[in-house]
Amino acid sequence: MKRTAFFISDGTGITAETLGQSLLAQFENINFVKLTRPYIDTEEKARVMVQQINTAAEADGARPIIFDTIVNREIRSVLAQSNGFMIDIFSTFLSPLEQELSSDSSYSVGKSHSIGHNSNYMERIDAVNFALDNDDGARTHYYDKADLILVGVSRCGKTPTCLYMALQYGIRAANYPLTEEDMERLQLPNALKPYKHKLFGLTIDPDRLTAIRNERKPNSRYASFAQCEFEVREVENLFRRENIAYINSTHFSVEEISAKILVEKGVERRLK
Amino acid sequence: MKRTAFFISDGTGITAETLGQSLLAQFENINFVKLTRPYIDTEEKARVMVQQINTAAEADGARPIIFDTIVNREIRSVLAQSNGFMIDIFSTFLSPLEQELSSDSSYSVGKSHSIGHNSNYMERIDAVNFALDNDDGARTHYYDKADLILVGVSRCGKTPTCLYMALQYGIRAANYPLTEEDMERLQLPNALKPYKHKLFGLTIDPDRLTAIRNERKPNSRYASFAQCEFEVREVENLFRRENIAYINSTHFSVEEISAKILVEKGVERRLK
Repeated sequence: MKRTAFFISDGTGITAETLGQSLLAQFENINFVKLTRPYIDTEEKARVMVQQINTAAEADGARPIIFDTIVNREIRSVLAQSNGFMIDIFSTFLSPLEQELSSDSSYSVGKSHSIGHNSNYMERIDAVNFALDNDDGARTHYYDKADLILVGVSRCGKTPTCLYMALQYGIRAANYPLTEEDMERLQLPNALKPYKHKLFGLTIDPDRLTAIRNERKPNSRYASFAQCEFEVREVENLFRRENIAYINSTHFSVEEISAKILVEKGVERRLK
Repeated sequence: MKRTAFFISDGTGITAETLGQSLLAQFENINFVKLTRPYIDTEEKARVMVQQINTAAEADGARPIIFDTIVNREIRSVLAQSNGFMIDIFSTFLSPLEQELSSDSSYSVGKSHSIGHNSNYMERIDAVNFALDNDDGARTHYYDKADLILVGVSRCGKTPTCLYMALQYGIRAANYPLTEEDMERLQLPNALKPYKHKLFGLTIDPDRLTAIRNERKPNSRYASFAQCEFEVREVENLFRRENIAYINSTHFSVEEISAKILVEKGVERRLK
């Protein structure tokens, strides 16, 4: 069974999309076609949306589900004329909140207000630059400035995790690859020893690692299953011996890995 | 007036946090202290949360606002005993959705289900690698594989935008810096000419650019206001002459810039 869902906003659409995705994920038997439509900020654009919604309704033989976070009443009343099932995110929650907070919202006084997605621009850009400059052990003399240092074998997911934490939370995360040389010495690299409290380990299933490395260097020793299995085993032993908390990235999304690391290390988000 | 808000989840907390941030942004006069508490997935952890909520309630002299997306009923009933004002995201919307979809949700049948945050792991990792490998004009011979190519002066925000689009949407975005040399020739670099349809321009206010460059290379000619102003003016002229759509990144978040680019170029998200 196919059903269309629209995430519609006068801004980026991130709130409508995030909430809509979470709610639709609770209906595993339905095959949703999901369409995000940001910056629907005029009645004219809303009328075009109504046509798209009605076209989808006819094609599916069922009303599309509409998740919307549009603030302007006139624009929303245009949308409401469509043949869609409206999940009205803001109006549902804002009036109980207004009562609890004894305060009018910008929404109810009809004033559009930018939706605060981590607005500390410079803080985030600095965190992204920190992640890039301190990626893959490239530089180790700024570890005193790091909130976290991820360690693990090459291609286990350290870089995307560091970048995600920088962009989403403003966290300064470095990462350092544990190479075969470190394994044979069976101890932490010297560069990491003074920062043991900042370390967090990532590990990965050897067959996933083999697949990822083969994309980069097909049929190399580096990408062989035997090599991947050896490295993963040695690094997990090191984590246990050195008492470094770690997780296996294989079955988690970057969001999940990041959230788990922050909980485990007790690091607070820098963006408010 | 200070008020505490908690974003509580049995998963990453991203849905509770995103929706909560958007709703609280509508109350500009209230100073919220925002705390995200992911992975509250046992009754024991929920009891610890209740204590934290009650402590905040006493300190503030007002009930904390609780945004929660916990699926398990027992855990939620523990939380409900706290002295907080509960905004119950899932139960509010799931029963109207169940009715509309004529289908039980995993939630209502008591089955926890991972909340689908862009689960296509490999697609995202490939997009991040693409952004890193094709950053700053480092490599230009894979532009045929790019969804987008961002162009602009050095340090105008190209790299964080490309990385965000990769992580959030799985978009393959390259970026190419327009340098003084290109400006004096007053034309597009040859590497970009075959891909004009993929180009999108970023620009920035010269004083913001001066501040950013000064962090990198203090007191250099590169960071001087005169140089920044000259580069920005020349590049904006180029964008207009070559008919390249562009936006000024100064007053927008990375999320806003990314969403606007996708709309403008008609590029669809690759993650579903």
